[in-house]
This record gives sequence, C-alpha cells and structure tokens, in this order.
Amino acid sequence: MKVGIINVTGYAGSELVRILYRHPEVEIASITGRSAAGQKLGDVFPHLSALDLTIEPELDGSLDLVFSALPHKASAEAVIPLLEQGLRVVDISADFRLKQADEYEEWYGVQHPDPAYLEDAVYGLTEIHHEEIGGAQLVANPGCYPTSAILELAPAVQHNLIEPDIIVDSKSGVSGAGRGLSMTTHYSEVNENVMAYSVEGHRHLPEITQELDLISDRHLGITFLTHLIPMTRGILSTSYAKLRPGGMLEGDDGKAKLLELYHDYFDSSPFVRVCDRPPQTKQTSGNNLCLIYPTIDVRTNRLVVISCLDNLVKGAAGQAVQNMNLMYGYPEEMSLEPLAIYP
Amino acid sequence: MKVGIINVTGYAGSELVRILYRHPEVEIASITGRSAAGQKLGDVFPHLSALDLTIEPELDGSLDLVFSALPHKASAEAVIPLLEQGLRVVDISADFRLKQADEYEEWYGVQHPDPAYLEDAVYGLTEIHHEEIGGAQLVANPGCYPTSAILELAPAVQHNLIEPDIIVDSKSGVSGAGRGLSMTTHYSEVNENVMAYSVEGHRHLPEITQELDLISDRHLGITFLTHLIPMTRGILSTSYAKLRPGGMLEGDDGKAKLLELYHDYFDSSPFVRVCDRPPQTKQTSGNNLCLIYPTIDVRTNRLVVISCLDNLVKGAAGQAVQNMNLMYGYPEEMSLEPLAIYP
Amino acid sequence: MKVGIINVTGYAGSELVRILYRHPEVEIASITGRSAAGQKLGDVFPHLSALDLTIEPELDGSLDLVFSALPHKASAEAVIPLLEQGLRVVDISADFRLKQADEYEEWYGVQHPDPAYLEDAVYGLTEIHHEEIGGAQLVANPGCYPTSAILELAPAVQHNLIEPDIIVDSKSGVSGAGRGLSMTTHYSEVNENVMAYSVEGHRHLPEITQELDLISDRHLGITFLTHLIPMTRGILSTSYAKLRPGGMLEGDDGKAKLLELYHDYFDSSPFVRVCDRPPQTKQTSGNNLCLIYPTIDVRTNRLVVISCLDNLVKGAAGQAVQNMNLMYGYPEEMSLEPLAIYP
Amino acid sequence: MKVGIINVTGYAGSELVRILYRHPEVEIASITGRSAAGQKLGDVFPHLSALDLTIEPELDGSLDLVFSALPHKASAEAVIPLLEQGLRVVDISADFRLKQADEYEEWYGVQHPDPAYLEDAVYGLTEIHHEEIGGAQLVANPGCYPTSAILELAPAVQHNLIEPDIIVDSKSGVSGAGRGLSMTTHYSEVNENVMAYSVEGHRHLPEITQELDLISDRHLGITFLTHLIPMTRGILSTSYAKLRPGGMLEGDDGKAKLLELYHDYFDSSPFVRVCDRPPQTKQTSGNNLCLIYPTIDVRTNRLVVISCLDNLVKGAAGQAVQNMNLMYGYPEEMSLEPLAIYP
Repeated sequence: MKVGIINVTGYAGSELVRILYRHPEVEIASITGRSAAGQKLGDVFPHLSALDLTIEPELDGSLDLVFSALPHKASAEAVIPLLEQGLRVVDISADFRLKQADEYEEWYGVQHPDPAYLEDAVYGLTEIHHEEIGGAQLVANPGCYPTSAILELAPAVQHNLIEPDIIVDSKSGVSGAGRGLSMTTHYSEVNENVMAYSVEGHRHLPEITQELDLISDRHLGITFLTHLIPMTRGILSTSYAKLRPGGMLEGDDGKAKLLELYHDYFDSSPFVRVCDRPPQTKQTSGNNLCLIYPTIDVRTNRLVVISCLDNLVKGAAGQAVQNMNLMYGYPEEMSLEPLAIYP
Repeated sequence: MKVGIINVTGYAGSELVRILYRHPEVEIASITGRSAAGQKLGDVFPHLSALDLTIEPELDGSLDLVFSALPHKASAEAVIPLLEQGLRVVDISADFRLKQADEYEEWYGVQHPDPAYLEDAVYGLTEIHHEEIGGAQLVANPGCYPTSAILELAPAVQHNLIEPDIIVDSKSGVSGAGRGLSMTTHYSEVNENVMAYSVEGHRHLPEITQELDLISDRHLGITFLTHLIPMTRGILSTSYAKLRPGGMLEGDDGKAKLLELYHDYFDSSPFVRVCDRPPQTKQTSGNNLCLIYPTIDVRTNRLVVISCLDNLVKGAAGQAVQNMNLMYGYPEEMSLEPLAIYP
Repeated sequence: MKVGIINVTGYAGSELVRILYRHPEVEIASITGRSAAGQKLGDVFPHLSALDLTIEPELDGSLDLVFSALPHKASAEAVIPLLEQGLRVVDISADFRLKQADEYEEWYGVQHPDPAYLEDAVYGLTEIHHEEIGGAQLVANPGCYPTSAILELAPAVQHNLIEPDIIVDSKSGVSGAGRGLSMTTHYSEVNENVMAYSVEGHRHLPEITQELDLISDRHLGITFLTHLIPMTRGILSTSYAKLRPGGMLEGDDGKAKLLELYHDYFDSSPFVRVCDRPPQTKQTSGNNLCLIYPTIDVRTNRLVVISCLDNLVKGAAGQAVQNMNLMYGYPEEMSLEPLAIYP
Repeated sequence: MKVGIINVTGYAGSELVRILYRHPEVEIASITGRSAAGQKLGDVFPHLSALDLTIEPELDGSLDLVFSALPHKASAEAVIPLLEQGLRVVDISADFRLKQADEYEEWYGVQHPDPAYLEDAVYGLTEIHHEEIGGAQLVANPGCYPTSAILELAPAVQHNLIEPDIIVDSKSGVSGAGRGLSMTTHYSEVNENVMAYSVEGHRHLPEITQELDLISDRHLGITFLTHLIPMTRGILSTSYAKLRPGGMLEGDDGKAKLLELYHDYFDSSPFVRVCDRPPQTKQTSGNNLCLIYPTIDVRTNRLVVISCLDNLVKGAAGQAVQNMNLMYGYPEEMSLEPLAIYP
C-alpha cells in the first residue's frame, strides 16, 4: 500500500518514517513539510539518510492512506479534503479526538471546521477501540499522555474498582513538546530541572475524561497534572484513586486480584505489558509498549497505577502504525518494535 | 565557634563544608570519614581544595557542635556519646526524627539504641519548630522529601482547608541517593529514565505524617510516592487534597485567598518563598530556599501545591546550618545562599 | 544456526540479544551470566521480556557460534576450550585483538593463556578485514574507540596523505564503561561533567597503532586521549594530522579530493557513511553505522577527521553480528539497523 | 561604587548579577535589557528574586563602571558613547578583543565602528594582563574558550617548550551558546549527543592566536576545534603540541619539571590551580577557577595540557568581576567563589 505523511519534519513525522521503513507492506510514496519543501529527507534528518525521499510542498500521487503530523487546526484543514476524496487518514493531531465540538473550541481556542467528522472519527487508542478501528476511514490518534493515563485506568474503571475521583500525575520527556523552539525546550533551561506546567489545565485532560467516562457508567472527576523532566523520550504517569468501599479488592489478596484483573484486561493486547514491578520509561525507549504496574497503597486503601511508554512511539507514531495495521488487516505488530534500546 | 563533621565524605557532609566555609562565626575544627581517613579533604573532593583540612578517623579537639552525616543507626551510635558529654548535635540522619521508637524500628529495621533521646530531639524543620530549635541540644534534621512535603502542606493543614486524605507525588534528582554505588544510581541506568521507587512505602512517610498530624487536629491519611528523575540535585513535590466543603476557599476568589494564606503563613520565613507561578527546581540549585506554589484545580475542587528545593541544601546541609544559626543566635540567613546557580 | 552468548548480563551481551532477536537465520540457543544464573532474561532485563530465555551458568546444547561478552582474561579462558572443540567464536573482549603476546601482557597486565590464537584470530574491524573474516574461526571484535579511530584514519593512511604523527581525541558516553559499578559511572559524578581519563595511556591505543601500522608502510606515532561525557551511548573521535607536503591534497580543491578519496574507500561498505557535514552521535543511536567527515584545516594544512558511532552497536554487538553475517555468508546488513533513534 | 549592566537578560548578564550581589563594594545601580524592559528582574529570573531591581530600556543614573553583556556589534555601539563620557567599561562581547580591525572584520563580518579603541582596550585575561588591567578604562573580557586555551598554553609557550604547531580540542556545555533559541540548543537535539561545530573556524581562534603570539617570540599555527556536549555549564580544553627537541623537558623527570614550571607560572594567581590529576568541569561549577593539568605523552614526546572552567564564571561574568576588582584596587578574590557546587 502507498502512504503519505503530511509534515514529516516534526518528531512524530520523522518517527513515522523510521517505523514505516521496516514495514513490508508499505511504500512511503509522498512526504510533505512546509519549511523544508524541496530538500532531501536525509539532509533534514541525517538519521534517515537510508531513504531516498524528497520533501514536497504538497502530497503527490495516488495514495491509500495519509498520516497527518501537523499541529491542530492545520491538520483538520489539510485532512478534510483528503477525507472528501475517500482517502483513509490517521491524524496524529488533536483535531478529531474530542466528540464535542464545543469542547474542542473551549480547549483549542478555534472553531472546528467540520464537526460532522468528530462523529465519524474513531479515537485511536488501539487497545480500547480495537474493533472500530478496523473499519474506520478516519482515526484520531490519541495524545501521548492520554494513551498512558487511559490505559492504566481502564481496567479499574471498567471493573468499578475505584471512586469517581482520580488524580493523574504525569512526567514527560521534552520531545513531547515537539521540534519547535521555545524557552521551555531550550537545553540550558530544561537540563537539571523539573517543573509542573499547564497547571491550569492541560489540553489532554478532555480526552482522558471523555474516554474514561465512556468506559465507566458515570462522570469521573480527574485532576491531571503534567511535569517536564530532563530527558528526551518517555512518559510515566502515576494515577491515584480511592478504592470503592466494599469492592472486590478488599482483603489480604487485594493486590493479587488487582494484578490478575489487569492481566486479564490486556490479555490479547500485544503492546500492553502488565508488570509485577514498577516499570521504567527506559524499558520502552523506541518500542511500542505501554508498561503498567497496578498496586494498592494499603495504608490509605488507594489504587496506585504506574504506566510508561515512549511518547513518540506508543504515544504517537507507533500507535498510528498499529492503527494502520488494523485498518488494513495486517498483523497488529507488523514493523513495530517489542524490544527497547537499553541502556 | 568550633564545629565537627562526622562522615564528611558523603554528599551531605561535603555540602556542609561548602556552606560552612563562608560562615564568619564557624571554624571547621574536625572532620571524619571512615574510608578516607588520613587523606586531605581536597584530595577526596577537589572542589573543596581551598580548605586545608585532613580527614580523621575520629573527631578531635574541643568542639561546640557536631554535625553527623552518617547513615541511620551508625549516626545514633556516634552521636549519643557526644550528647552524653554535653555537646550540641545536628543529626542529618533519620535516627532522631521519629518520636515513637516502635515506628523507628518498623521503618528502619533496627531497635533504637536510646529512645529517651527521641523525646528530647527537636525535629529540625526550621520554619515549623523555629522556637524550639533555639534551645535544643539535639536537632534531628528532616529528610529532603519531608522538608518539601511538610512545608507545602502545613498552611493548608493548619487552616483546616482540606480533607484528611492527601497524596504527595515527589520527583527527586539522584544525589538524594547519596554517594554509595548502586545499580539505581549507575549513570547508564538513570539517564534518560524515570521510575517510581519504594512504592510499598518510603521511609520518609512517617516523618511527614508525624509532623502534619501535629499541625492538624486529626490523623491524616497520606499516600506518598517517590520518583527518580535524571538530574543530580532537586526535589519537586506535588501534593493533592480535596478542599473541605464549606471551607474558606470556596467562591471565585479561592485561589487568591489561598495564596494570601500561604504568604501570611511564611511571612517571617526567609527561606520559604510563596510563588505566584509554578516554581522549578533549577531556581533552587545551590540555595537554601523552598519555593511553594499553592493553587486550586477548580474542575475538581482540589488543592494542588507544588514545592521545590535543593535536596542537598534546604533538604540537608543548608537546613542543618540554618538550624545551627538558630541554636547559637546567629542571623538565620548567615552563610546561606538566597540566589541560585542558573542555568 | 544456533548461537550462544557468554555473559549476556553486560551491556554488550544484552545488546547482542536485542540485535539477534531480529535475525531470521539465528536461534539464540544458550545464554550465560554468572551472577544472574537461573534467572529469566526478562527479569534481569525487562526490555528483553519478549524473549523467553533463561540465563544458565554454562553454555548448553549444540551450538554453531559463540559470542563472548566477558571481560578480558575471563574471555580467553572461556573461549579457548570452545575453539578447541571446533566452534566458531566472536570475542568482544580484548583477548585476541593484539598480535603480540608481550604487548597484550604490557597493556592488560596478564600473560596470554595461548598466544598461538593471537596469530589465528582475525581482527574484526569488518570494513578493514572483510575478506579474512569470512573464513575465520575466531574473530576478535575491536574496541569501540579503535573502530571509530581506525575507520576515520584508514583512507588517509593508506593513501599516504599525512605525516606519521597523529592525534586522536575521543569523547565517549558512559555505557562504554559497562554495567559494573564505579565512582566514575555514578550518576551524580558523571552528570554535568566532562573529564579526560586514562591520560597515561588507554588500552585501546595498541589496537589502533597495530592496525594503522598495517595499513601504512611505516610506524605511526599516535597520541590517543579519551574523554568521558554525560550521555549513555555514542563515541565521537576527532583526529588530527599534518598533511604530507607535496601530497595530493594540496591546492584549492584539496577538501573535495579528500572527500572523494574517502567516498571511494568506503564505497562498498554499507555501514560507513562518509558525510559532507560534521556528523553527530545521535545520528547513530541504536544503528550500526560509522559516520565519517574528513576535512582540512587550511590555516595549518592539517587533516581533521571526525567520526561517530554507537559504542554498543558498531562499537561492540552490532559489529559482532556484522562479522557473524560474513562468517556465515549472510547478507552483511542482516538484522542490523541503518536508521537511528532520533531525537 | 555604582555599576550598570547592559543586557542583563542573557546568561552572562544574569550571572553578573548573581556574583555582584555578594560584592561588598558594589551597588548594582542600573540594569538594561531590550526585550524585558519594564519587568522586575525577579520576574524574568526567579532565581534572582532576592534583588529588587527593574530592567530599564537604557542605563540610568550616575555610574562608575558598566558591564556590557550585549552581543558583538551591538556592544560596541552601546559602549563607545559611555567611553566618550569617561566611564570605565568591562565589555563581555568580542568587540574590543582583537587588536587588528581587519581581523575583526574578517571574523565578525562587520566593520569596527571605532578601531582606535582596539588600541586602548586591555584584553582582560586577568592572569596574563594583570598589570595593565588596573589602569584600563576599557577591558575586553575574553571569550570562554580562549580563557581556557590561553591559560593552559601560556607557560609552555613562554618557556619555549613546544613546537609552534598546536592543536586545541575543546568541549563545551550548551550555556555558552546563550539564551537565544536555536536548533543546536533545542533540548531534544542536544541531549544524548555530541558534535563538532564551527569546523571551518571558530571566532575564538584569532583571540587565542593573538595572545599566544604575544607571549611567544614567533607565530604559532593553531588548529582549534570546538565540540558541543550535553551539559549546561563547563568547558574542557585539551591541547596538544610536540615538545621542542633539546628542550628542558627531556629526560625522565620531564613531567615533574613541567608541573613545576606551571606551578611557578601561576604562583600568584588565586584563580588558576595547577593540578596533579586531570581535572573535571564539575570541580569548577559556579566558581571562578581555571584548573590546569599539564603532562607529557612520553610515547610521542608530546605536551598534553587539559584545562577546565565554568564558561559563565571564569569564562565570562566571574572574570569580568575579577577585572573590575583589579580596576578599583579591591582584593582580586572579592565576591568570587573558590568552591564548586558538587555534585
């Protein structure tokens, strides 16, 4: 099949190339990038020099599927005409993730150009919407934080283990902020530093709430706080919620039961590994895994779940390819790495 | 005055030297360190070459005050004979922080050699026990995490702003683990990595609970989780607790009231700065400050407080000197740095 | 084919597993590691959990080839009995790299257990000894530094472009020092630090001299100095040598001629890329490439060559697999990555 | 005395404030910064919140001395009118470092606005021009690289120990590139990466040549190559040069003689420490020291000298204050730190 990548010059875009390069069924037929149009891909990204591709101002040729790695707003504008032409699209931006147009407008500060597509789009958290993704024309690839937060909470929410009041404390490497220059991604400012940011509310919160509310039978109150730490790749999310009184985790074997529930939930998910020890982001560097460790703080009767992933792979480009694999009936793991670069 | 430092060869010990070097009233009269006994301090720590001191196997000479930077158990054993002789001691280890001997035994796995001193010792979180420190013979210098956690929660607890159910999610640099070698402080393992550790319960939890319970009028349930991040110095703690219904922070000006309460609480504390923006650990690198930003997550009606400090300064050696200043009637700020090394 | 890995628990050993996992012709039939014997590989290295292998105290079963990732001395002792049995071996240690037993003894401080094998062994710098490797029973895989230094200097030496007096200034990440604990690999000591080490003479110098002398027609004087920098993977070597007066690089087009000579030299080497801009170690992270940029400092008429590679891949495990591919007639690139993990 | 700082908003400017804050003889009377004019210094740099200063668009009030931390060209334009008014100036930019106006134009691409001042300016490498600095109206503060390179080579050049053909291989942290945003200072690009840059010729070369030629009795050929490594502060320079045949370092005690010569040369320099082991940049973090380790590669009869310093202190703001101290007859060490922040 022939795929196109819009805005290959960001980190998600270049990561798509790295992953698709190995894909036996895919030909990267066209790549675009506004600032670098006309340049060879290997001149912009020497680590991709093995590919002989030129960055074009616009997509070109007959394509089956297009990945968009544009920022929000620009992505919807680029993608809607392609959808009208019948192409299938995996959109890595936030433009089609939220079901409610007004919520999109509230969080992103722009009116949605075509809310009808919000209805059609499938939220591409692969493990959660596995069935729907296969037939989707438009997959809205999740944010990096929501992938870790929703996956680590889904089993607890579905089994009604916890009170509807959750805290997600996330720590992210810097590549999640993209390739655009800013003071908060300037080396000397980030190195040897940790800070909370978007304390008033991070744009990934409505995705998390939307998806967990869907799984739950009620509305969940979620405090979501993001922290920037001095590393390039990786997200670790720690979630906290009170166990529901009288729930199935009471008793001495609560932790064991919890672990079993999580194992069962992700039994058929090749890219989620439920761990019996706290995982580390380094164990996901370059691979498409989400590692999840659920436990109970017995002193306070609280669920604590820790998950980690590579924000550019399972949190972006890898999950996009995983979704493409489902859309075309390829093996879900095709071209996706299960091992990590370690140390 | 003449001071001694026991176990100068760890990070807290060498940091004590760095700070005391500037102190106009202090002569560092004797330093010890078992492994390096007989060596010049500048040979072990070239960054301290400006001092002409030799590491001795045992304290020597007539001393007014001794800082112990030994690990727990060893510290109590070394310090008790000094106390018997009438010396004043600031103990940086955990040996005299907990008031209950059984709790000490539970968390540290050894019986306390002389529980009577637990009664006498003053918990040296300077801003909280300011008055008692002045007259103390033995000050138990707090842990690095408890310093950030207790300070950021004390005003909320004292003013009864929150429910008695608190989450403290802390992120620490690696120097907190000391100078001893281990796989979790091996460069290639820590770099580009974040992980939670001591998930079953970190030894700093009982200190936090003890002190906040003292401030509160009831027992608080606290979940405390620590994370190791790839940087050398710095701790950032994020605390979460539900606002008490009907409390004084309800209404549109809750955040402003909260900020004001925090400002008032620390009004006379030169080393706590209440911030109107989220602080960053880099703003505390090398100085003795604890920066605190309290806010409200209005979506869930939850208090969120973020604090940060340099774990080796305000979290260890700096606070020890601050305590010494109070014990001897020196200005509280003497020899302690208010500016940070930035970037 | 069936391979064994001795001492899988170091960084080179675990990297071998990562690379061989993808190899369509290889079955990892047996792995050993003294300290971790009896444990599952995935318990020691969670990033390799996808493989169901148990670490054994000794190699087991019928094997075609064995990789040894033991330290020097231990490796020779383990490998010689295997050679006697007729197995083929790629030894990642230094034990068979030097042709002169006395030189081995001088630099490594131990007598060589069987100098006859020094004769038989092929120095496994693939691009230089391409032909001999195919038929070798024992390949002595080069050190990480020599791989970068020899490759970047080989064309200049072979074409007699430079005076026989060379400086190699190398900068390495910390993983080259292995997984063993030491003060110089302790996070808080390495982070935010750069230092020269082994200033009196690094053990990789005799390899570099041996191989470049072979290529040259005379003995070269080489100053080789290594520096440790705060990153995990990667080596960058900068070499300096005066251009030979009257040589072919004189004149205005010297740089262009130089680039052409280098391109020609590595024309058939899939894992050396001659660059027209200075390369960066990040462009080799996780892949098997050596990137080389040769240029001339026209102010001083000096050759300057910069090379970089991933010390654990092209500098160790990757080159070992590349050598295995030649030994068994597989395509040289099989299972070896040409793209890098970036950023 | 009253000082002004032009362009306080860069890293050198803010470091000046940090150092001068402690200076008992100095009042920081006026600070400027174009982009941040009107803001409180503590709002731009929270780590300097202890100072109550407002950033102005222009210098204000009666001043004795002005530090300029502007980039080249802008600095000369700002400083010349002040000089005309009789103020004393320490210029941290490159505008008055080179004695030849044509050389300035060649390297900086702009014509010098007033070459007469090139004559008057004293090159402010304190240890080399100690006497002249006292009486100077205009001190041209050296670049960070030249400070390390000239200091480590000065004794060897003065004593005619080496051939006139030198290589300086420098490794720098990222803060040397300033606070301005660029792809080469973007965290995700720099972290876990090392690269050479300005390979065609770095602007600090002519300073190095000018000063060493002055010390020598002949023209030196110098190859100077700079590398960017993933840390914030610190420069380490390694210099290489052939020993002059028949020189005083021949014989078995060459290294000892060399060390003695270096010790003697810097005998009265409080901020240069000649080391008997290779130094590390971490030993200079935040202090004003230059650490120098000279040795001989006996295999090739080559001088190797390693120096390191904090590029923002001895390499910029610290040396500027050291110069000010000489200009006003204060003790040379006043307000300058001899200890380092370690680890």
